[in-house]
Amino acid sequence: MSIAESIRMATGDSPGGRLALARLLSQIEDDDPRGLEALNDLFPYTGRAHLVGVTGAPGTGKSSLVNRLVYHYRHPPTGEAPRSVAVVAVDPSSPFTGGAILGDRVRMRDLAGDPGVFIRSMAARGSLGGLARATASVTQVFDAAGFEVIFIETVGAGQAEVDIAQLAHTTIVVEAPGLGDEVQAIKAGILEIADILVVNKADRPGVENTVRALKGMLELGAPQPRTFRHHGALLESLLETKPEVPGTWTTPILRTVATEGDGVPELLEAIVRHRAHLETTGEWQRRDRARLQAELEALVAQRLFEGWRRRVAPAYYREILDRLARRAISPHQAAEAVLVGSGEAA
Amino acid sequence: MSIAESIRMATGDSPGGRLALARLLSQIEDDDPRGLEALNDLFPYTGRAHLVGVTGAPGTGKSSLVNRLVYHYRHPPTGEAPRSVAVVAVDPSSPFTGGAILGDRVRMRDLAGDPGVFIRSMAARGSLGGLARATASVTQVFDAAGFEVIFIETVGAGQAEVDIAQLAHTTIVVEAPGLGDEVQAIKAGILEIADILVVNKADRPGVENTVRALKGMLELGAPQPRTFRHHGALLESLLETKPEVPGTWTTPILRTVATEGDGVPELLEAIVRHRAHLETTGEWQRRDRARLQAELEALVAQRLFEGWRRRVAPAYYREILDRLARRAISPHQAAEAVLVGSGEAA
Repeated sequence: MSIAESIRMATGDSPGGRLALARLLSQIEDDDPRGLEALNDLFPYTGRAHLVGVTGAPGTGKSSLVNRLVYHYRHPPTGEAPRSVAVVAVDPSSPFTGGAILGDRVRMRDLAGDPGVFIRSMAARGSLGGLARATASVTQVFDAAGFEVIFIETVGAGQAEVDIAQLAHTTIVVEAPGLGDEVQAIKAGILEIADILVVNKADRPGVENTVRALKGMLELGAPQPRTFRHHGALLESLLETKPEVPGTWTTPILRTVATEGDGVPELLEAIVRHRAHLETTGEWQRRDRARLQAELEALVAQRLFEGWRRRVAPAYYREILDRLARRAISPHQAAEAVLVGSGEAA
Repeated sequence: MSIAESIRMATGDSPGGRLALARLLSQIEDDDPRGLEALNDLFPYTGRAHLVGVTGAPGTGKSSLVNRLVYHYRHPPTGEAPRSVAVVAVDPSSPFTGGAILGDRVRMRDLAGDPGVFIRSMAARGSLGGLARATASVTQVFDAAGFEVIFIETVGAGQAEVDIAQLAHTTIVVEAPGLGDEVQAIKAGILEIADILVVNKADRPGVENTVRALKGMLELGAPQPRTFRHHGALLESLLETKPEVPGTWTTPILRTVATEGDGVPELLEAIVRHRAHLETTGEWQRRDRARLQAELEALVAQRLFEGWRRRVAPAYYREILDRLARRAISPHQAAEAVLVGSGEAA
């Protein structure tokens, strides 16, 4: 049986499938060539899962919220079928530890042993571009394995986290009452990528102020075409992205108390409604294509750089670096020199 | 008078110098070719300023702390000379607004009109790589203009912000009491880049717990060589970075109340002491070189990608994207195809 076949059994109750899945995810994270090969084999089976990004500032309770959502997908109201769910928890704020610290995962007792759930924590290892690439690949593996909903949870509040969240079809931005002025400033930027806004910890004082502030900001902000930036975010896009088809989607502001489960069914309903909106407007395909283009261009940039790295003579490069450190040449002049020196077109 | 000569008058009380400086910074942010030319001219005059990165989670009061530090540099104890100070405030959390939202700046009345202070807020515009490049360039302009201390303040808590903070010789990580469990997890990663730890808002409840937690984490973490990642963080470094010379630096944990100014003189003293440590151990030169190498490699990657973009035929690229979106080929296969199709070495 091929890896691809094994993986595609992973959502069933085949322990072999889960084991193959876990092994493949590790290979991908380790840049093992077998992982890359399997990704090529699996790619034709992707494109069906609903990718849901969950992002927001630290302390908003995102992980608890995702855990609750997963539970609801697994235990739907009578008459509805449970959905298989994967979670990719990205922790780019821990660049050195090499392992994700997500105590919340341990508390997911209700989900332990459920073959319809798979949770993967990813730690940043050295480069954001690498993390974004690995996250895209892991998401594709879950998609090909047949998981119907994939949460991509980013711990953090910076632009890189926003970029990773934009891998998703549906982006949920989580806020909480009373996180101070600085957080207000952040919201202004992050609001514009939100398909659904959640004020979690809605049992805390100040929730009305937070909801009112978010409403005000939503009304203030003119509707803008949603743009995609790149994994690693180094590059401008080659082709323009078509502006979003004017649809009927109005970003809802929902209140939840994740620790109690309050408001979680309503949030799940909004996620399902957003998917239907994407499908009827053609936005599903557009976001899918933009995501793939971003991934492609990040791979191209990586391969171009690696090619250059193989061609440049280390002794020559070291000499250029010495001259740069002595301020004999500027960084731009040094770049010119090492590109010409390795035979690149200027 | 050349641009370079004008700029180098900017720290004096020449209004013309300040005007030339402001104009050059705008040219750099706008990718104006004149900005690039001036950067090449100015680069030989860089390398003297003390670059101090200030980073931490939202809500910790970083901006207020930087404002206080600037004030102390300008108003030193009797007998000491005031230092000229520039601040580069990076706001990558606002990718869409195009303008930085930093209310705190408005409150800096004490510093308004002081020719020895220059503050520049930078907003993210489209790509983190672009922001990191512009920040590096702006820092170089301030350095060449003769500013003795340059603060690089990053609003955010993600890895990209950490990368930008690592432009600095000295990195200050700011924490505050009671920001919750999720922040604790973040600290684990960010602690290892801190040369100085500050618990701001030290008049709040929970400060003892925060200090104790930080101490515990510092003791737990084995000393590791400090590594540099790249602007845009897409790439692995070509040359290994030498491990840090084992010195005598022990990361201090300081308490401040920025709004009252408490603890700020002690923080300033630690910054000065860290600079002396860097100089006596040779670490100053090592960090300078690592920073320049990172900048050079980001420029190389950018130019390689732009070169490819000029060479690839749009119709061919569009066809490959269509096949990718149909899942007829994988992202890696698509990258291979567009690189071969534009005549790149495979």
